[in-house]
Formats: sequence, structure tokens, C-alpha cells
Amino acid sequence: MCIGIENENSDDLEKNKTAYGIEKWGLFEVSCQAQVSGNPYEVEFGAEFRHAKHAAKVSGFYDGDGLFKVRFMPQTEGEWTYITHSDVRDLVGQRGSLNCVAPSTNNHGPVSVVSPSRFAYADGLPYLPVGTTCYVWNLQNDELEEQTLRTLEQSPFNKMRMAVFPKRYTFNTNEPPGYPFPGTPSNHWDFRCFNPGYFQHLEKRILDLQRRGIEADLIIFHPYDSGAWGFDRMPAKVNDRYLTYLVARLAAFRNLWWSFANEYDLFPERTMQDWDHYMQLVQHIDPYNHLRSIHNCMAFYDHTQPWVTHCSVQSQDLHRVPLWLKKYGKPVIVDECGYEGDIHMIWGDLSPEEMVLRFWVGFTLGGYVGHGETYVNPEGVLWWSKDGQLHGESAPRIAFLRKIFEQAPAAGLTPIGKLDNETINMLEKTTSIFDQGRDVDRIIAEGRWNVEAGGYCGDDYFLFYFGMRQPGSRNFNLPPGSFRIDVIDTWNMTIESVAESASGAYTITLPGRKYMAIRIVRNL
Amino acid sequence: MCIGIENENSDDLEKNKTAYGIEKWGLFEVSCQAQVSGNPYEVEFGAEFRHAKHAAKVSGFYDGDGLFKVRFMPQTEGEWTYITHSDVRDLVGQRGSLNCVAPSTNNHGPVSVVSPSRFAYADGLPYLPVGTTCYVWNLQNDELEEQTLRTLEQSPFNKMRMAVFPKRYTFNTNEPPGYPFPGTPSNHWDFRCFNPGYFQHLEKRILDLQRRGIEADLIIFHPYDSGAWGFDRMPAKVNDRYLTYLVARLAAFRNLWWSFANEYDLFPERTMQDWDHYMQLVQHIDPYNHLRSIHNCMAFYDHTQPWVTHCSVQSQDLHRVPLWLKKYGKPVIVDECGYEGDIHMIWGDLSPEEMVLRFWVGFTLGGYVGHGETYVNPEGVLWWSKDGQLHGESAPRIAFLRKIFEQAPAAGLTPIGKLDNETINMLEKTTSIFDQGRDVDRIIAEGRWNVEAGGYCGDDYFLFYFGMRQPGSRNFNLPPGSFRIDVIDTWNMTIESVAESASGAYTITLPGRKYMAIRIVRNL
Repeated sequence: MCIGIENENSDDLEKNKTAYGIEKWGLFEVSCQAQVSGNPYEVEFGAEFRHAKHAAKVSGFYDGDGLFKVRFMPQTEGEWTYITHSDVRDLVGQRGSLNCVAPSTNNHGPVSVVSPSRFAYADGLPYLPVGTTCYVWNLQNDELEEQTLRTLEQSPFNKMRMAVFPKRYTFNTNEPPGYPFPGTPSNHWDFRCFNPGYFQHLEKRILDLQRRGIEADLIIFHPYDSGAWGFDRMPAKVNDRYLTYLVARLAAFRNLWWSFANEYDLFPERTMQDWDHYMQLVQHIDPYNHLRSIHNCMAFYDHTQPWVTHCSVQSQDLHRVPLWLKKYGKPVIVDECGYEGDIHMIWGDLSPEEMVLRFWVGFTLGGYVGHGETYVNPEGVLWWSKDGQLHGESAPRIAFLRKIFEQAPAAGLTPIGKLDNETINMLEKTTSIFDQGRDVDRIIAEGRWNVEAGGYCGDDYFLFYFGMRQPGSRNFNLPPGSFRIDVIDTWNMTIESVAESASGAYTITLPGRKYMAIRIVRNL
Repeated sequence: MCIGIENENSDDLEKNKTAYGIEKWGLFEVSCQAQVSGNPYEVEFGAEFRHAKHAAKVSGFYDGDGLFKVRFMPQTEGEWTYITHSDVRDLVGQRGSLNCVAPSTNNHGPVSVVSPSRFAYADGLPYLPVGTTCYVWNLQNDELEEQTLRTLEQSPFNKMRMAVFPKRYTFNTNEPPGYPFPGTPSNHWDFRCFNPGYFQHLEKRILDLQRRGIEADLIIFHPYDSGAWGFDRMPAKVNDRYLTYLVARLAAFRNLWWSFANEYDLFPERTMQDWDHYMQLVQHIDPYNHLRSIHNCMAFYDHTQPWVTHCSVQSQDLHRVPLWLKKYGKPVIVDECGYEGDIHMIWGDLSPEEMVLRFWVGFTLGGYVGHGETYVNPEGVLWWSKDGQLHGESAPRIAFLRKIFEQAPAAGLTPIGKLDNETINMLEKTTSIFDQGRDVDRIIAEGRWNVEAGGYCGDDYFLFYFGMRQPGSRNFNLPPGSFRIDVIDTWNMTIESVAESASGAYTITLPGRKYMAIRIVRNL
């Protein structure tokens, strides 16, 4: 017996299902009861979904309690029918239908890459990733997890880096509430099976994020295991089975991104070919082509590989965003440039001023930057991993930044960088990485180089950020036309309009403080 | 008729000459009166100085008013004799002697390079360049120049970047009080001759610096002429004659350094071979082998050339000091990393916090950093060029830094850098530039990488700087022995002793503020 419903784990009927059926990019689930001899996790099971103009083959999975499920995210409105297939007779040839209707207001569909530097939701709405990092927020306890969600509701963050597996590391010495495989730590696992409850909880939290407009940048593998569970060194076949299971369970969640690893280069036993393989496998079996990335510690993965959709970067040097944009030809998210905090390690001791500065440099240069917070507190609950509350000063400034960049042209900004020739020549052995920026010489003349970081869009929009500089003025030769000019205090979060219709040669007076920016926007 | 005296331009008899003769590294001058037919600047004239163990051939010069001079800086105590030579009969075979005695207290002799990263005076006293930039302070007026000297007396600066030629540039639109050649601007010069008064004034100011313990880093050519005088595009023969004249006049000043150009790469009409030639020429004719460098705008000169004694660098990225130290194998002075100020250009708008931060990063990583100040003021007199007074907040912090580094081991610091692998690999195509630093893994363990910039000397001395970070603690595994530990607030200029005799595994608590440093010194 099979029934087709929205995901039973979901309580957001009003979002994913309307009175008339499943909304576009909602999650439709076919659930079939069957008794099988042998290992139910090894049962072949799936369904084909058909629409007047489309068809999709979708793999199913075993969810425990005799239940086999297929999940489907319809991407086209109208009537869909489905038929199941399996190597178990009871699961073969089950049929049903669903009516896919228009998405609800806050459902914009999955995010994808729409240009060499930009993302957008499936409905065309631009998406600017403003992420934070809560590695194992989903593996704490309900009280803390609910607190995290309440904090997120007040935060500017629309992407969350989070892991499937538990974490053992400084400040992370607790056992998770459950395990992904049946068995006991540290190494008695039945890798032939999964623990459905573990993944059901993960899905609940992914939906919690979805409801709050937050993409789940799901870290599939990470090296912070320390022998506690051995999930960082499972046999190759288990890794493949795990990936296949994840795709079957999770691919129908529209806010899902695949992050194949955190700090992939810290896994001593894996080769680059292993990582290539994982990404190629998921690329092959994910019906929805969710975003795929892989995050480095020191050495970058080759983000030019066709199975990588965007760059997920760890680096403390945001000034190199233009270099990576050019080198990889894909959007650049510096997920980890250091976290605001005061811990004893260099990756978690940024002052809030420096955290905000790095956001401004990265965004102005056409990239995206991720947040994290690591203030030591008596409870030992740090946002970057266990989450709960934010204690720092950067989040409101990041909210302010997000507004500024959401008002910027959707086409994105061409960077005006300040990498010096030595770096450019040595890194590239070619001409300037700012070739694209040369047009701006004509346009903005002296202002061209006199920034900490700058970005522009055609001759309609210019944004200049000054960081730890404290200019008292800047001179510009404005393009033909009339421009509105704002002086932005990125720390105090103020925008002062200094000209409503400036034109020609124009000197902008600045207050001689740190953390200032200038925005020049064409009057239409 | 010739007389041998200390330089008549000098009024510091008590320093360069004692009751018994000329002190070591003092300036002895032979002055001969002669009438010549033809151009006296084309007369061949010089002298040979002889000591029981040494001899030196020194070129002379025409100083106007029928006076031909030879200047000599004795580097060995004892009796010296001299005999002149010339192609003019009256100037041939003039003899005399001088008694070279021990140097006075504040005379340590000329500075030279004593290791791949260090300078010292001739008497062995380590010299840490803590320079400032006052390009044409010597071409203003007596009142302003004397004010500059009074300001310098209160400052931490022991090196001055200054130019021979006048400067035409933003904030520099005045004519100098005189010109190096007879004639009138903009291009009516008699390049066959010189204007001795112009150079006499320059010498007076070089001696004024010498008396205050300041090295004169003399910029021979600069591109900031704008057609006002054409000194940036003189004929090749004139350039050579000018260099020869400079060496004859100035080489006997012990505090002189040759800086062949400021921003050599901004001269459109000169080839790299031209610059090679200038430096080789001076290397050949300077009897004292004064320090020789050449300062870039964008593209670095090849500082590995044997005629370059040290790197004079313009760059905003102090984190690369270890790279340059390794690449060039010579001391690195980042003369220009931006100036404290508020002008409309990026090279002169650093906040004082950023200026001081850059000093700390550069010095901690084993290099030296230069200061400049460019605050707009009603008089249009900016320190970086016309000088006078300092208005900023960095100078006292630089004085504090100088004390810290003068207390550090004379052997200098091995850098502990934070250039990431991407840069290192791409810049070098080799292994880490921090090879030398690997020993420190054994020594200081976790503290190894957790710095903004760090330096150490053997296992006796460690200095860690945190910049815009705000750590609450750092953990160290101290080497065997007992150590004194100080927490330094580089902005508020305080040193707090946190341990008198720490050993073994040790956690240092920090105040969670920006701009902090830790100093760990072995108790002997």
C-alpha cells in the first residue's frame, strides 16, 4: 500500500501544499509499506514522475518501520502522475498523481548559479548568500536547537553551513543525541544500514531553516572526528551508499546545497580522485542538480571542474576574490574568513570590526562572505558549532550590509581591486585580473584606484569601501548623467545622502573616520 | 693653495673633529683655490689618502668661487697623508695630513648590511631603520626646515627619505629656493655646470640629520617633475655627471644612503639597463660603499642584483615581508606602505591604527617599515613632503615599537607568517617560505600559527602580534627553561608582565582587545 503526501516530517502544509495540491518546489512524498526479507536498505526502489512535458526518475529510500519512500520536488505546475519500480514485488507498479500548483509567497524555489558571479532562486529572484556557520546545531538538544532558530529569525543570515555527522573538536566534546548508523561508538557500526530517526531529525531542521528563508549548505563529510566515531574514514562502499541515501532522502528539499566537505584537505586518507568521485556521483543521481561545492582548509580544490557549481573558500584574504572569480569563472563564497570571537585560535578571534570589514571587502569585490561566532562563554556553547545565541557585534552590521547589496544591481558588481602588480603577475603570469575594470578608468578616473575595495555595474552604479582608511575626500569624474551620492558608515550603520543630482567632476567630502563607503547611483 | 679641514659647511666641530684631529667617520675636506680656463666642473681633480695600512682614491669636485674640494671620511684611526692629482697644474701634488682619532660618543659610523636581514653601524651597534618620509623638506625655507628639525628631535625616526631635486605634485606647487643647475625653469639649464649653493644647502641639511642620529636616504631621481624643470629627463651624459658630482660631494657624509629613485617604474623614458647603470656607476666610484637601493611604485626592481644592498619596497601588504626576505636575501625596508592621513588618494589616507598595525606586522616578520603623514591642513604643508609638524597619532606608537624592537635580539627575528599555501605555492612554486620557521613547531606548538604576525630568535625570544584580532587567550608549550612573558598593548603603549618565570605548557590570558602582542623572553 502506498500513499502520496507531502513529507510527513513537515508541518508546513500551508507552504508546500495548497488546497489544490502540492505547490511548485514543494516536497511530495510517496510512502509504501512492504515487508522484505533481507536488508531493506539494499532494496532497489524508486518512481518515475510524468508530466505532459516532463518526466523525472527519482530514487527512493528505506525509512524504517517497513516504510519505503520516494520524495519528489515538482518543478513544473500541472498534473503529474507517478509509477514506482523496485526489486521487491509489493513495491512495483504503484501509481498515483499530484497536482502541482503555483508556489506560495515565500517559496522562490531552489537556488542555482545564473552567471559567473551570481545566484538566483528558481523564480528569478536574486539570491545573495549571507551565510553563517553552525556546524552541528542540529545535533544538540531541542531547547538549544529551538533557541538557535529564534536567534536566526532575528539575524540577517540566509544560508547555514551545517554538518550531517557529529563533531569532535575543541568546544565539541558531547555525544550527539543519536547516530547515523545503528551501533555504538566508537567503531561498532552496522554500515549496511542507516538510522532513519537521525536523518528525520536532520530533515526537520532543514525544513525549519527553509521556513525561515535559510538555505542549508549541508556538509556531507568533515574531518573533525578524532576517532570518536570514525565517520571520517568509512569504507569506500559505505561512503557511496551514504551519498546515495542522502540524495534519496534530501534532494527534494528545495533549500538544500551539497557541500562535499569542510576542509577536504585535512582528510589524510582520501585522494583528490575520491572527492571527484563523490561529486560526480551526486551530480549524476541528484534529479534537481542542487548546488555543489567543497570547502578547503589550505589548498583549494580545483573549482573549474564541471561538477563544481560555485567556489566555497576558506581564506583570510578577501582581496583575492576577483582573482578567484576570474580563475574559476564561478560565484565565490568565502564561507570562512575567520569568525568573530575571542578563542585561543586564529580562525576564531576576529574583532567585530574586522569581521565586518572582511564582509565589506568580499561583497564589494563581487563575492560573498560567511559569518561565524566564537566567543568563549561559561556554558561552552559557541555559535560556530553548537549555536544558541549570538553575543557579538557583527551580525547587525551584516544585516545593514545585506540591505545595501540587495539594493545593488542584480547583475552584480565588477570588482575594482587593489591587488598589486607583483601579486597579479606572480599569481597569474598574465595581465591584470582587473581587465574588466578598465572601462571604469574612462568613467570614474581618479577614484579608480583610491579604494580599499570597489565594485561597479556599467556606468550606473559604483560602490567604494575604505576599510581602515580615513579619507577626508575623494574626487570623481562622473559619467554623463545625474547621480545620487551616499556616504555610508558601515560600522555605525548610517547612510547620509550628500548629493541628489551630482554630475561631472565631483569631490565627495568624507568624515575622516574608519569603515566608510561611498555609493554612487545613476538617477533614472 | 690648499687647506685640509673639516667640511666648512659643518658647524659640528665638536663632533667630527677633536682637539687632536678628525674623528673616525668624520668628514675631512681638502679645499684648493685655482683659476682654470674653461669649465671648472670639467676639471679632473682628486686625491689619494694613505695610511700605514690603507689607501683610498677620492674624487673631488668644484664648489664655485674658484674652490676645488676633496672630501674624505677616514675609516681607520691614525695618521693619514694625502696628495692631490688633477689635469690643472695648480691642483696637482698638493700634500697634507690628518690625524684620525676615536669617534665621539654619538658617532657610530656609516650603516651597512650585516646579515640577510639586519643593518649595523660601522662600530657594530645594531641599526633598526625606523624611517619617515619628507621628500623635499630641504627645499622649503629656513623657518619650515628648522621646524621640521625640531619635530624630528621629538620623533622616533632615525632615517629620512628625502630628494635632491624639487618636487612638482599635488600639494607641491611651490618653486624651490634654488636650482641644482644654473639657469631658469622650465627648461633653460646649463647642464654642463652645477649650482654649488644648492648642494651646500642639501649638505647642511644632511648634517642636521646626522647630528640628530638620522640617516639620510637620499633620493637621487624621482618622477614628480611634471615638466616644471625636466630633471626627470635629463640627457644620459648629464645623469652620469650628476651622479659623479653627488658622489664627490656627499660620499664622505657617514649618514648617507643612496636611493637611486623613488618609484623608478614611473619614469617612462628609462630602461632597466639605465637603472642598472646608475647603480653600477655609483657602486664603482663611491669609496665607502654606502647603502644602495631603489624604490618601486608597482613593479619591483630585481633586488638580487649585486649592486643592491637592501630592498626598498613600496607595498601595502606587510605580510609578504618574509617572501621578500627569502626571495632577495637582503634586508627589507617597506619605505612606503601608505601614510597616516586623510587626503583624497589611497597612499595617504591610513588611519593611525592601520599605520601602526602595518609597522607591527612588518617589524615582527623581520622587516622594517617607513612612516609618512598626509593630513590636509589649511597651510597645505603636509609632512610627507614639505614637513614642519606632525599632526597624527602614529608617531608615539612607533616610538614605543622602536623601543620594543631595540630590546629584541640583535640577530633579528625569524618570521612566523600567515601567508596561506595558495599564495606561497603560486608565488614560489616551491615549498613554504617559512621553512626556517619549522623549528618553532617543536618549540611553541599551538602558538605557531595562531598569530597575525610572529617572529622568534632561536628558542630564547618570541614575539606574537595580533592586529585586529582580539584573542582572550593563547596556549604555548614553552621550550625547556624559564621565561618572562609580557602582554603588550601596542596602541595604548603599555607592557604588562604576566609571568616572571613561566615554563612548560602555559596559557596566556589576553584582554580581548585589538592591537595586542605577546613577548616571551628566556630568563638567563
